[in-house]
Amino acid sequence: MLKAIVTVMLKKGIFDPQGRAVQNGLKSIGFEDIKSVRVGKQIEIDLETADKTAAEEKVHEMCDKMLANPVVESYSFTIKEI
Amino acid sequence: MLKAIVTVMLKKGIFDPQGRAVQNGLKSIGFEDIKSVRVGKQIEIDLETADKTAAEEKVHEMCDKMLANPVVESYSFTIKEI
Repeated sequence: MLKAIVTVMLKKGIFDPQGRAVQNGLKSIGFEDIKSVRVGKQIEIDLETADKTAAEEKVHEMCDKMLANPVVESYSFTIKEI
Repeated sequence: MLKAIVTVMLKKGIFDPQGRAVQNGLKSIGFEDIKSVRVGKQIEIDLETADKTAAEEKVHEMCDKMLANPVVESYSFTIKEI
């Protein structure tokens, strides 16, 4: 079986209000020396297949079709055996 | 400057409705051979410091105090120079 670990983040330059909120929250409890915070998603997908090449192609398709919004988000992933 | 990449996931055994929704969504568009999906957060924090050891301690503190809910979530992080 394979596990795909997909990371979806807002593209650089796209305003990230959630990240800003986290940064402000951290500042309010005493963490001052933070330059910026960005918040994205990590999606772990357990796949019932052993074919890594086919899995890579499928995960690309999943990201393009559903997991990421290509207009404002970028994604990357790794696949490992479990 | 340092970048901390924090991953926060629901602990094993904690029901993840967001993951289930993603799994159902992927199934509905034709991805059948998925055993499970878990959705968590990836938080990227740019720190204005060069001291990696101190940064590690601080990021642990941030996670414990704000970024993760220790009752239901676990976290891990890496720190790299940028």
